[in-house]
Amino acid sequence: MPIVDIHTHIYPPAFIELLRSRTTVPYIRNFPDAPESSRLIILPGEDDPSTPSTSRGRPIGPEYYDITQKIAFMDMHKIDTSVISLANPWLDFLPPEEAGEAARRINDDVDGLCAKFPGRLYAFGTLPLSGSAETVVKEIERLAGMKYMRGVIMGTSGLGNGLDDPALDPIYAALEKHRQLIFLHPHYGLPASVYGPRANEYGHVLPLALGFPLETTIAVTRMLLCGVWDRFTNLKVLLAHSGGTLPFLAGRIESCIKHDGHLKKEGKIESRRDIWDILKTNIYLDAVIYSEVGLKAALDASGADRLLFGTDHPFFPPLEEDAQEWHSVNANYRAISKTFKSDQEAAQAVLGTNAVRILNLHT
Amino acid sequence: MPIVDIHTHIYPPAFIELLRSRTTVPYIRNFPDAPESSRLIILPGEDDPSTPSTSRGRPIGPEYYDITQKIAFMDMHKIDTSVISLANPWLDFLPPEEAGEAARRINDDVDGLCAKFPGRLYAFGTLPLSGSAETVVKEIERLAGMKYMRGVIMGTSGLGNGLDDPALDPIYAALEKHRQLIFLHPHYGLPASVYGPRANEYGHVLPLALGFPLETTIAVTRMLLCGVWDRFTNLKVLLAHSGGTLPFLAGRIESCIKHDGHLKKEGKIESRRDIWDILKTNIYLDAVIYSEVGLKAALDASGADRLLFGTDHPFFPPLEEDAQEWHSVNANYRAISKTFKSDQEAAQAVLGTNAVRILNLHT
Repeated sequence: MPIVDIHTHIYPPAFIELLRSRTTVPYIRNFPDAPESSRLIILPGEDDPSTPSTSRGRPIGPEYYDITQKIAFMDMHKIDTSVISLANPWLDFLPPEEAGEAARRINDDVDGLCAKFPGRLYAFGTLPLSGSAETVVKEIERLAGMKYMRGVIMGTSGLGNGLDDPALDPIYAALEKHRQLIFLHPHYGLPASVYGPRANEYGHVLPLALGFPLETTIAVTRMLLCGVWDRFTNLKVLLAHSGGTLPFLAGRIESCIKHDGHLKKEGKIESRRDIWDILKTNIYLDAVIYSEVGLKAALDASGADRLLFGTDHPFFPPLEEDAQEWHSVNANYRAISKTFKSDQEAAQAVLGTNAVRILNLHT
Repeated sequence: MPIVDIHTHIYPPAFIELLRSRTTVPYIRNFPDAPESSRLIILPGEDDPSTPSTSRGRPIGPEYYDITQKIAFMDMHKIDTSVISLANPWLDFLPPEEAGEAARRINDDVDGLCAKFPGRLYAFGTLPLSGSAETVVKEIERLAGMKYMRGVIMGTSGLGNGLDDPALDPIYAALEKHRQLIFLHPHYGLPASVYGPRANEYGHVLPLALGFPLETTIAVTRMLLCGVWDRFTNLKVLLAHSGGTLPFLAGRIESCIKHDGHLKKEGKIESRRDIWDILKTNIYLDAVIYSEVGLKAALDASGADRLLFGTDHPFFPPLEEDAQEWHSVNANYRAISKTFKSDQEAAQAVLGTNAVRILNLHT
């Protein structure tokens, strides 16, 4: 039975060049005080010049761009097939006039990487979202014809106003028409003020552990509230990090909707699909949640046929220099094995057969 | 077997007077265009003058301040005992020199309300947190001697710099010494910018459904990261709304800590209690989560002996004018009854006997 990793990132060479050419976030740089170490700075606030360069962003090596390292990582962790996606922040930061061409170049690159390892690699494409909706729709149509593309990765900003922006409707319509799912992934987190004055003492923990999942939860709730899935009933979205916090908060979200005086006055409470229906019909969740508690909640919310194994490689590598296997990956393997200890078929579904079926993979 | 509601709020008459005397958030006012309706404006952004007054904040009636309405609500929902607490924003907004006296007045008021219904009402006290740590410690010592007080309710701002502020240590020490638990409750939510330009179209849903639980999660994670429970190993904290999102995200938080290069360099990864230990030793969770999915995750994270039934009354009333029972309350009852359908003893524990034991109630 195949093991498929649907949450695994790459910066293909064309994207690395782009990041090296820049001087504001996102960028890659070798700082003068540590010239041998390349640092990847992608999160807002990570380039605070008052912190030593070795604390800014993260070290970046070939595991980020060399596809043979991806394959070696897959071999080490017994992963048969990976559905690779460009890591955040994708092309959100590009001037509109450059976005379309950059997306084409990167998608061609990534499809080419997949072609080198047939059956082992598929991909989610990148959209030129800083461009116009027309440019985006064109790229969706192009992706639909590419051999190894199986959907698109998307951040939470959409065309700049979030995923509840009506200007996205042609894009959602094109994705629905071409049966391409959205892999919805966070990047922007929350404003630094919410973490308080001591946040820097905690490394990257608060923005990564909380900001990311909260950003995803807000984005998907906004999609829900603006009726995306009432208008596009076949639009499928795979949520990163087991939905952020959506499975846990779904009951509260639904209750807050049902008790909102404004929504009632507008007649918006009854005329909509409820969150549990959407969770079981339109939403898939990855299994990147690092605990049995979280994975069980994701399972209860979405069902074993809608959960998909992932690793988040190359992020969260082991800190020990002599480490081989990745603790972060094994934590997710362990959560699956504990959660499904008495249901091997469900475990296999989450580990791979769901991905094969949902994404039409030939492993 | 008793049913005990540990999450139920009141604005005692002295607090209502205070809110009526004010013109900036928080305040209570009858607007000229609807003079018969009092509006309670407590959340930042709720008093946008461009929205009609009937959409600002929420209508406030005697259910907020009349203790006989609390008792009637308890009777209707078969609640034997309520542990009442001042609703947000407590006294966070008061000038420092007024805080101590206001806290004494309000705590005396609330203790007096409890005395009118012996066995049916207990309370969490209010702290003068805009004052000095000394003033707060004095009030904690006074509360420890009051007949119906069983802990304190606290927001996430502490003395103004969050709950990871070392200046809170004397307060944590006093609470630990007097065995008073903290009922940690959100109020401030997240900056409005995170909800995007269309947020107002969704009523209060985004700040209430997401902002509140996310605020709680950030606050408790900051406590954890700064080592509050390493220094105060017997400090007990009851988290509102089943921990915000803590049960679901605990695995990711723990994984992010273990993979943080900065924390490792500082030697902070190994020398700490892990999140699961703290969840089973220092943290209690209320059962105000409105779904079986969420309640099961809370149960898996903390254990059936650490979950406590609550209603959040008088918030989330039914919107139908002729409604009797509250859907919001019944959603939480239903989640408990489904989650514990084959374990009546655990159901009773969550519904009441945990609260009796943990808070030393005489029902």
